Amino acid sequence: MSRAQLIEQIKQKKSFLCAGLDTDIDKIPEFLLEYPDPVFEFNKRIIDATKDLCIAYKPNAAFYESRGLKGLQSLISTAQYLPKDILSIIDAKRGDIGNTSDNYAKAFFNEETSGMSFDAITVTPYMGNDSVTPYLKYEGKWVIILALTSSVGSQDFQYLNTGDGYLYETVIQKANTWAGADRLMFVVGATKSTEFTDIRKHAPDNFLLVPGIGAQGGSLEDVCKYGMTKDCGLIVNSSRGIIYAGNGEDFADAARAEALKLQQQMQAELERAGVI
Amino acid sequence: MSRAQLIEQIKQKKSFLCAGLDTDIDKIPEFLLEYPDPVFEFNKRIIDATKDLCIAYKPNAAFYESRGLKGLQSLISTAQYLPKDILSIIDAKRGDIGNTSDNYAKAFFNEETSGMSFDAITVTPYMGNDSVTPYLKYEGKWVIILALTSSVGSQDFQYLNTGDGYLYETVIQKANTWAGADRLMFVVGATKSTEFTDIRKHAPDNFLLVPGIGAQGGSLEDVCKYGMTKDCGLIVNSSRGIIYAGNGEDFADAARAEALKLQQQMQAELERAGVI
Repeated sequence: MSRAQLIEQIKQKKSFLCAGLDTDIDKIPEFLLEYPDPVFEFNKRIIDATKDLCIAYKPNAAFYESRGLKGLQSLISTAQYLPKDILSIIDAKRGDIGNTSDNYAKAFFNEETSGMSFDAITVTPYMGNDSVTPYLKYEGKWVIILALTSSVGSQDFQYLNTGDGYLYETVIQKANTWAGADRLMFVVGATKSTEFTDIRKHAPDNFLLVPGIGAQGGSLEDVCKYGMTKDCGLIVNSSRGIIYAGNGEDFADAARAEALKLQQQMQAELERAGVI
Repeated sequence: MSRAQLIEQIKQKKSFLCAGLDTDIDKIPEFLLEYPDPVFEFNKRIIDATKDLCIAYKPNAAFYESRGLKGLQSLISTAQYLPKDILSIIDAKRGDIGNTSDNYAKAFFNEETSGMSFDAITVTPYMGNDSVTPYLKYEGKWVIILALTSSVGSQDFQYLNTGDGYLYETVIQKANTWAGADRLMFVVGATKSTEFTDIRKHAPDNFLLVPGIGAQGGSLEDVCKYGMTKDCGLIVNSSRGIIYAGNGEDFADAARAEALKLQQQMQAELERAGVI
């Protein structure tokens, strides 16, 4: 998916909402367990109920891998079901040297070999440009690099002073020399909204994938105040807050209601910033 | 597997060799393609031919994931076939926050949910202690943290000066506050053998997993000179150099011959250092 297509989706839906499909088989409504693939059935209904409100979906690979072959089947079915005009992100946080990254790229971008073709993958930067460039060979695909995360562990290394700012700032600066804002995004945790100002200095045009709204407690208003650009420049994710909004037969309606609430807040922010 | 068991294996086999199962279906002997699972058949024969010489096996997850369900089946079959008294390492380089890491731990340590139970996993440190501690809940399992890697990309961030040494040194120091040398190892690229002296200051007792011997060009002698401890403290990996030593009907014999050469060099090093 191109940057122009992504921006078009945002303007058309008046939303920059990503629904995180962190689907845990122990947390989905019990009646779904009768289906041949309960996790896919759950995802399918969530997607159907929210696809006019979301501009991205983001399955978290770990939740599928933990279930072995069955889990991978759920992920493949979900990948193939995701609407083609909506950005599909695999939250895999891979990061390895060239030869290995080539294979991860096949795993998530090459439907012919793996059954899956996502539009974007999250990547961890520790191994440097090897971790990123192999994915860029796939035209129209995105790499989303971890910069500043919202967990407690982000304190351990991401805030180390490298002499030229914090490590996460160096990551953004360096990565932006490898590709442009039409191919690279960054993960920036929403619990640090005041730092969006600093991040925008290094990444004025990149889209930022922002987890941590909802269950993790970030403020949408702050994120937009400090992080929004003229093209929006934000994809804000909510996982548990949407997908586990309900737990009965009507769970998909509950998910939609939650997504709608977020979409309406997002519309107000887009209007305030003059994006729409 | 406990540290004592690992050391016992090393002394008994007079070897600290890990064979990297980076098995690429496009590179295995053609006659194997007639088997129902050619990649597993290849791995099985490599393992049978080298298991008296190796103290560890390390499948690289990417090479399996790139083939979707078939690849995962090959990985599961391989995991289940690996001898229980030999350290099994999944080279997955995962790294995420607690809840997600819990699921990756299930994927690779919990046979009941995923079909796989490796002894150790490689992990990337960018997200801090969240990336590591969830795996430590599994008794007897190891976390192997990326410190200094042997690829060109290692220059991008691992050598940043954090005011207290290089980033990779800070990673080692910090990680060693999370667990002891009975649970944590570090990945250290063998192309940087002179730096083993510095690394041993921060990690006097940890086992180091050393890739980059053979195809990537590191020197075994230098690694041992600067990195070996009284308990050996090294696991040296060779992937392509062993598994693709031959490409005919006798590929497993060729792999064995290559592994034997390395084992003999390792025996000499262990004797020189007084480990055996």
